[in-house]
Amino acid sequence: MEVRRRLTNIMMMLITYDVNTTTDAGKKRLRRVAKQCINYGQRVQNSVFECLLDPAQFAELKNTLEEIIDKEKDSLRYYYLGSNWKKRIKHVGAKEIFDPEGTMII
Amino acid sequence: MEVRRRLTNIMMMLITYDVNTTTDAGKKRLRRVAKQCINYGQRVQNSVFECLLDPAQFAELKNTLEEIIDKEKDSLRYYYLGSNWKKRIKHVGAKEIFDPEGTMII
Repeated sequence: MEVRRRLTNIMMMLITYDVNTTTDAGKKRLRRVAKQCINYGQRVQNSVFECLLDPAQFAELKNTLEEIIDKEKDSLRYYYLGSNWKKRIKHVGAKEIFDPEGTMII
Repeated sequence: MEVRRRLTNIMMMLITYDVNTTTDAGKKRLRRVAKQCINYGQRVQNSVFECLLDPAQFAELKNTLEEIIDKEKDSLRYYYLGSNWKKRIKHVGAKEIFDPEGTMII
């Protein structure tokens, strides 16, 4: 029952992070945000993450991210794409999965 | 009737643009993409735009953007947030409207 409840509550949350990566501190915050987000999904652009999680996981992730970022300088936006998210997304151009070890894209 | 049809078809489209802004050409493409997107909405992060448009306007904007970007290097993602978009978005941290004339945020 618990598993079923969790599966039916799974939602897609899009997270976009605006940070100044010309500073080492900014780069480090982006790395830390990315590390947390990819536990729940994938990095689709340098600072855009698509995470599949249930409401409790989202609350936990949100708290963690908001401890990492510098709220005076950075911003985070959360977009709730719901469970019917696949038809809401379209990609154009370079590869769909962002590879931070590949070409440097800022 | 035409006006009513258009108003009821208005939807929120989130557009995220991944581009290497360490090059002058990349910076220029971002400026051109931003200029197009803000005709229909606002720039909420350096390369994240929220646009309110009807399907015909979206098709036109999409064509324009895809002529601007370098598809080998950049990527665009479109997220359809629909008409009930206000409850789907949450912002945390620095100012909600991105000001490219202000602090440089990459």
